[in-house]
Amino acid sequence: MGINKEFLEKALALLPTPAQQTVTVADTVTFSKNGLKITKHPAEDYRLRVLSRGDSICLDFGDHQVGYLHLKLRRVGGHSDAPVPLHIRFAEQPIEFFENPEDYRGAICSGWIQQEFLHVDLVPSELHMPRRYAFRYVKIEVSDISPSFKLAFDEIYCTAVSSADDTVLEPYSYNDELLCRLDKIACRTLHGCMQTVFEDGPKRDRRLWMGDLRLQAQANYETYKNNNLVKACLYLFAALPMPNGQISACLFLEPEIEADDFYMFDYALLYIPTLLDYYNATGDIDTVNELYNSAIKQIGIAEKWIGENGIVIDSEEVGWRFLDWTAELNKQAGSHGVLLYAIKKAIELAKITNDEHTVKLLADKHKKYRKAALDVLWDNDRQLFISGKERQVSFASQVWMVLGGAVEGETASKLLEQIKKQSDAIGMVTPYMYHNYIDALITAGDANKALEVIKSYFGGMAELGADTFWEIYNPENPDESPYGGTIVNSYCHAWSCAPAYFLRKYFSK
Amino acid sequence: MGINKEFLEKALALLPTPAQQTVTVADTVTFSKNGLKITKHPAEDYRLRVLSRGDSICLDFGDHQVGYLHLKLRRVGGHSDAPVPLHIRFAEQPIEFFENPEDYRGAICSGWIQQEFLHVDLVPSELHMPRRYAFRYVKIEVSDISPSFKLAFDEIYCTAVSSADDTVLEPYSYNDELLCRLDKIACRTLHGCMQTVFEDGPKRDRRLWMGDLRLQAQANYETYKNNNLVKACLYLFAALPMPNGQISACLFLEPEIEADDFYMFDYALLYIPTLLDYYNATGDIDTVNELYNSAIKQIGIAEKWIGENGIVIDSEEVGWRFLDWTAELNKQAGSHGVLLYAIKKAIELAKITNDEHTVKLLADKHKKYRKAALDVLWDNDRQLFISGKERQVSFASQVWMVLGGAVEGETASKLLEQIKKQSDAIGMVTPYMYHNYIDALITAGDANKALEVIKSYFGGMAELGADTFWEIYNPENPDESPYGGTIVNSYCHAWSCAPAYFLRKYFSK
Repeated sequence: MGINKEFLEKALALLPTPAQQTVTVADTVTFSKNGLKITKHPAEDYRLRVLSRGDSICLDFGDHQVGYLHLKLRRVGGHSDAPVPLHIRFAEQPIEFFENPEDYRGAICSGWIQQEFLHVDLVPSELHMPRRYAFRYVKIEVSDISPSFKLAFDEIYCTAVSSADDTVLEPYSYNDELLCRLDKIACRTLHGCMQTVFEDGPKRDRRLWMGDLRLQAQANYETYKNNNLVKACLYLFAALPMPNGQISACLFLEPEIEADDFYMFDYALLYIPTLLDYYNATGDIDTVNELYNSAIKQIGIAEKWIGENGIVIDSEEVGWRFLDWTAELNKQAGSHGVLLYAIKKAIELAKITNDEHTVKLLADKHKKYRKAALDVLWDNDRQLFISGKERQVSFASQVWMVLGGAVEGETASKLLEQIKKQSDAIGMVTPYMYHNYIDALITAGDANKALEVIKSYFGGMAELGADTFWEIYNPENPDESPYGGTIVNSYCHAWSCAPAYFLRKYFSK
Repeated sequence: MGINKEFLEKALALLPTPAQQTVTVADTVTFSKNGLKITKHPAEDYRLRVLSRGDSICLDFGDHQVGYLHLKLRRVGGHSDAPVPLHIRFAEQPIEFFENPEDYRGAICSGWIQQEFLHVDLVPSELHMPRRYAFRYVKIEVSDISPSFKLAFDEIYCTAVSSADDTVLEPYSYNDELLCRLDKIACRTLHGCMQTVFEDGPKRDRRLWMGDLRLQAQANYETYKNNNLVKACLYLFAALPMPNGQISACLFLEPEIEADDFYMFDYALLYIPTLLDYYNATGDIDTVNELYNSAIKQIGIAEKWIGENGIVIDSEEVGWRFLDWTAELNKQAGSHGVLLYAIKKAIELAKITNDEHTVKLLADKHKKYRKAALDVLWDNDRQLFISGKERQVSFASQVWMVLGGAVEGETASKLLEQIKKQSDAIGMVTPYMYHNYIDALITAGDANKALEVIKSYFGGMAELGADTFWEIYNPENPDESPYGGTIVNSYCHAWSCAPAYFLRKYFSK
């Protein structure tokens, strides 16, 4: 396909330079760990400390920050006659400090561990660290120091960056303290992820992912209303399709603008509802007209994976279908549900652009694939959708069938009750999947049940001290990491901003 | 005393900005170690290597360099989707690579270990490392890397810096290949140490020391002739005396100009011959006139430590007297010898400035302290000078008594033979002490013996692969470190440039 230069230029012209804000240290602290429980203790103000070899300070910036660290160093005693090696660690959550980076053996590159080994050649001096970090806590250890002098800090501060403007954020009010707290945490999550693009996580991977963008954009319309940022990202995806025209799964902006090289069946289709959501939030028909073709063609690309029975085939050939981080999840039914959902949303887009021919064509397709789902994937005995030749039962399958309109109303509501009773059902592990689950409950008319899920699932993270919502949260094992260490977990993750969207849209007074 | 601002301004105006030179990699190599023997092997050109996790390259810059490293990085494979942690080590001598920095437990600050742990956020990119290093070899290890891509280097080069101009260096010729080689190594040593000031070592401590300056200036007059650099340093020391007027042992230029806070008996006195040498090399009488008082007053300050017997007292009260790095060395006789030497040189300075009164005064002092040395420290049975109440016998004592003129001519020559026969004599460990030993042999009329010492001692380092001469060299234990690890040893050390001075002055054709 190549790059659509016109779209790319439009996108680049819209990309913001994140605003800067100076944030000072809120508290000097220490942490202790007893079993799984981590306790924060007040400590002597860092400005009063005089540090020798092996001494350290731990700083609390009061809330989750994304930005750059600055240190003003002073010496106590004789002349600084040797470089001072410092070990500086950044943590979104205190648990990260209780893992030794050297012990990390996970699959994901250890380059994501937020730490630096620096040399300060001269003291007094100012140290302006050039790399960006995501953190609430910073630990600075004096690895060694010449016996001639000791180290002290006159001031440590952070230049926080974001494209989310807190001054436009309207307060959320509801007669429930927990919900207000969840909204606040979700807004902070989105705030950290809104940079030059919508990043998936400001600690890691910092990329624009199509699947994450949809959820961030939804939360953005209810909160920071930086609609041009959504528009820029929509143009970026339209500008950089895969060779077959499929919307890319994720994009890099640096060192050069490039799409990653793998195909994602579900993420590509989710471009369609994202464009529709953008129109519904902004009424910007020009953008819809320009990006319409890029969106609609995703249906045809996905249809190549429909088998003779009218269902998305159960094969790795389809490419990566994310749905959730559960390794054992069979993704056939979920993928089919995503396709139905995308067709439903594409019909709305076609109506908006007065493309009557396509409206009819897509309506026929939806009818046909819906029927196939009910014929092939519906297990009448279990009253559930199954997936794959092993006839696997999962939350993901039911959720996407509901969102895709395979079942509706009372039937959908019953289905979402039915899945909860299955002891063999594959559960959900990511807030991304929970977002869609909550959406499905609301779609099925069960808003109150949706609210309960928000309270219990996101409330669980809040209970554990989340300042921002996490990439992964398994209530059974809060410190679980799919990567082999909490030090590479992303504790401020775009796809976890659901509460800000659902609460403000459906549960506000 | 405070700072003499006039002198300081003169000094600062004379300080050079070291010239820059781009140096490319000479060879890609590997090293192996068998017992004490290290062997260098050729390796595939670094530009052809494609590096995965744990891979490394080792570069040979062909000669000792002082400067900054630049890397042009390229990726092979997919987009760079995670920071690449690199471990970069610099070595003056290959032995340093065979020590694990983590095992270092020495007394000197580990901040001097020349290594960095860096993150490269994006590839392709250029990495311009901001800190200065002293090295011939660089080892770069890819500590980890995302499985999406591999790392390659398009180019690695160094911006070498020095205030020594190789174009003014006249070739040294003598009908002896070894001597030509020793001169070359000595010149390279001086070259590395000539920066904004004469540094003691460009790897570590990078400071202007009075004792080192004397020897560097001597070698400079015979080689790079950057006489203004000597002048600047003489003004710096005169500008920043200790509170009692004593010349400081060493100075820092950054982050602010300051003298270190300890007193050194011998180094302060050695300001006098350094000023005299400068005059003899340049004829710059104005500078001598300006700095004369600063120099001459060192005699009076040192005399406060003369005991009733006319000899420098044997006490720690005198402050640090360096002489050599031998812990067991008693420094009484050596200190007395340094005082005699300084007075001898001060007399010459006083003659140059036509200060007849001082000439006479100093001549009387020299006579008096020389007589005291012969009365109190001369052991007639052993035909040697002893030192301290334990009547210790050492090379240092005899050397400084010869340089100070306590004995002369045939007696001096016999004395320097006599000390070699003593099984209990404290030997010499630093090239600094060897420099004075060689000087004493020449003073005693034994130039040929001096040449043999140059050949055997400095030749020993050359034999072991020195590109520059070392801070410490003990022929009995070449890998000895007074600091607890070769990784903090300085292998390019100012006080080791003796061959360039002695060979060019006394042994050239």
